[in-house]
Amino acid sequence: MILFTDAVVAIAVTLLVLPLVDVVPEVAREHRPATEVITGHQPEIWTFLLSFAVIIRLWLSHHKAYQHVRAYSTPLLLCNSAWLLAIVVLPFSTEMVGVFDSSRFTTGLYIGTVLVAAGLQAAMYLIIRSDPEVASQDNPVPGEFVLGPVTATVLLLFSLVVALAVPTVGYWALLLLLLSGPVEWAWRRRRAVAEA
Amino acid sequence: MILFTDAVVAIAVTLLVLPLVDVVPEVAREHRPATEVITGHQPEIWTFLLSFAVIIRLWLSHHKAYQHVRAYSTPLLLCNSAWLLAIVVLPFSTEMVGVFDSSRFTTGLYIGTVLVAAGLQAAMYLIIRSDPEVASQDNPVPGEFVLGPVTATVLLLFSLVVALAVPTVGYWALLLLLLSGPVEWAWRRRRAVAEA
Amino acid sequence: MILFTDAVVAIAVTLLVLPLVDVVPEVAREHRPATEVITGHQPEIWTFLLSFAVIIRLWLSHHKAYQHVRAYSTPLLLCNSAWLLAIVVLPFSTEMVGVFDSSRFTTGLYIGTVLVAAGLQAAMYLIIRSDPEVASQDNPVPGEFVLGPVTATVLLLFSLVVALAVPTVGYWALLLLLLSGPVEWAWRRRRAVAEA
Amino acid sequence: MILFTDAVVAIAVTLLVLPLVDVVPEVAREHRPATEVITGHQPEIWTFLLSFAVIIRLWLSHHKAYQHVRAYSTPLLLCNSAWLLAIVVLPFSTEMVGVFDSSRFTTGLYIGTVLVAAGLQAAMYLIIRSDPEVASQDNPVPGEFVLGPVTATVLLLFSLVVALAVPTVGYWALLLLLLSGPVEWAWRRRRAVAEA
Repeated sequence: MILFTDAVVAIAVTLLVLPLVDVVPEVAREHRPATEVITGHQPEIWTFLLSFAVIIRLWLSHHKAYQHVRAYSTPLLLCNSAWLLAIVVLPFSTEMVGVFDSSRFTTGLYIGTVLVAAGLQAAMYLIIRSDPEVASQDNPVPGEFVLGPVTATVLLLFSLVVALAVPTVGYWALLLLLLSGPVEWAWRRRRAVAEA
Repeated sequence: MILFTDAVVAIAVTLLVLPLVDVVPEVAREHRPATEVITGHQPEIWTFLLSFAVIIRLWLSHHKAYQHVRAYSTPLLLCNSAWLLAIVVLPFSTEMVGVFDSSRFTTGLYIGTVLVAAGLQAAMYLIIRSDPEVASQDNPVPGEFVLGPVTATVLLLFSLVVALAVPTVGYWALLLLLLSGPVEWAWRRRRAVAEA
Repeated sequence: MILFTDAVVAIAVTLLVLPLVDVVPEVAREHRPATEVITGHQPEIWTFLLSFAVIIRLWLSHHKAYQHVRAYSTPLLLCNSAWLLAIVVLPFSTEMVGVFDSSRFTTGLYIGTVLVAAGLQAAMYLIIRSDPEVASQDNPVPGEFVLGPVTATVLLLFSLVVALAVPTVGYWALLLLLLSGPVEWAWRRRRAVAEA
Repeated sequence: MILFTDAVVAIAVTLLVLPLVDVVPEVAREHRPATEVITGHQPEIWTFLLSFAVIIRLWLSHHKAYQHVRAYSTPLLLCNSAWLLAIVVLPFSTEMVGVFDSSRFTTGLYIGTVLVAAGLQAAMYLIIRSDPEVASQDNPVPGEFVLGPVTATVLLLFSLVVALAVPTVGYWALLLLLLSGPVEWAWRRRRAVAEA
């Protein structure tokens, strides 16, 4: 399962570059200068870099979660399959925001795809924490295991709302994710106060 | 073998999205709105989702079977190679049903590819169960090991017959697979009655 | 090393289908019937199937050889890298024989690529057998370890000569590989007679 | 982590052939001879071979380094992710030097990508050597562990300077890498003299 998942994610992250590769002979055929591949396709390049970071981030989180798994339950397999679908769709959503002018529709589709992946990841964290059949006993789940993915999911939901409400913001709404550090810190602090 | 098989399946499932990615710059070049990528290509999107589910399903079943394998016999290697061929062909059959209007030919090709994969899977289950050189002893094959894949193969055969006989049904004929639950239940019940 | 090699071969074998997938929207754009994807592209389909079989065959042989390897020497790593290059080039040679009319040049390129891969495989078998630093001791190399790959290489060399001498034969010259069974049998017999 | 990295590198190295595969039907459509795929696209073929060698070389060095790793620190994960980005971008840079006439811009982009990958590799070697939490204890880091990757990085920096200063040199500036053998030898000698 891990092997298969890793391979799918690795392929999806590498496929992201293909639309950029395809641009090269097109520009050459029209006898335009090589620099135009970069200057004339900045949106595609930024979304490529953004999606690369998103997939690597999702994969690192997935990898961390599965170190605590010893057996697969049906809900976990279903969540993982749906998560893989979101990962496989991401190169498509990336191409949509890269090629078309930023709009409510394309940004919504992009942030929506990332949100679905993050939400499914949070669901997998919850399954792993709550199901003793699934969780490893050698490597028990730490206390604040689900805090990170749940925070990310909530912030992505906010990003989606902001991007749909104020279309000019575009996928910069994802910068809300930078708040995950402070939010997690505030959460831990509040809990520490409550326990004291 | 497992590693190689997993990698091939992972690539095939991820390649399914490429035709959808290719549609994006085409629509953009003709200055049509971004929503048209979705609204104007619904058949491709549905077949993408269907094939994603089909490949994941086949892989899960394959994965389950090979947990009971300790060594590879020549018939098993041949079946697995032919199964991989069916998996590699599936993105092609998917593109055929997605791009062309539904017809006896395209639906037959699509269901036929899935049927071949399922039939080879059933054959692998039979080989694993019957050959003591192949079957693992630590993790012995359970009693109704071959019931699932054989039922799926028979139902796919019915789907193919229905799709060829009534072309308007198209690949909805695959919904017959939903009967696999009841059929397996009926089979177990009949056997339990016979044994009693 | 094995993992990396398996992944490269798995990708190469799956990429073989991409040119066939690309044909589908082309035929559809010209409003020709779906059956023409098959009837009008038979050479591509046959070469796809041939190359699928060639790569799977090469991989099985590679897999068998590396079960006797416990450490990698520099010559083995170099041969393996060059072998991977031949595997990666094979989808290109496949496209050449599939798209162009059969000619001395395209057939020579195709059989040449397979010959290089087979020759490097034979070289790897020889390295594994002869270098005690490389060969596994738990799983020692069997007596006639190099007979198969050397026979295949010699027969491929004959195929190349035939294909270049009689261009109308095309890649059917590869059918000479069917002689590998009889040749290996004759070799073993001769040796048994010599030893008796 | 290793598994994921291997898969990404394997895909990137295999994707290098795709632009060559795409050339085939283009040449055929214009009814030009098959030999023209080779004769008319020599720059693409050379850069394909060069990039194949570069990626295999980087991977072998990466593989060697990670045999001394027992756990991942955050800096190591970040370097590895950035290294993967450079690997994923390499097929794009390859296409740029292959398709456009050699210029300061394209050569700089290509050597720059390789330099970034080599620099990150040197950084990973330094992290592995210096962080006792990361380095394996069963398989301790050898004395001159970082000499190779640091030499390669410095020589690539020189290549980049030469290629930017004398554009006609093009990516032949990479031949400076052949000096890595003599440079490492001189370094070891100087150190041996200093110690004596």
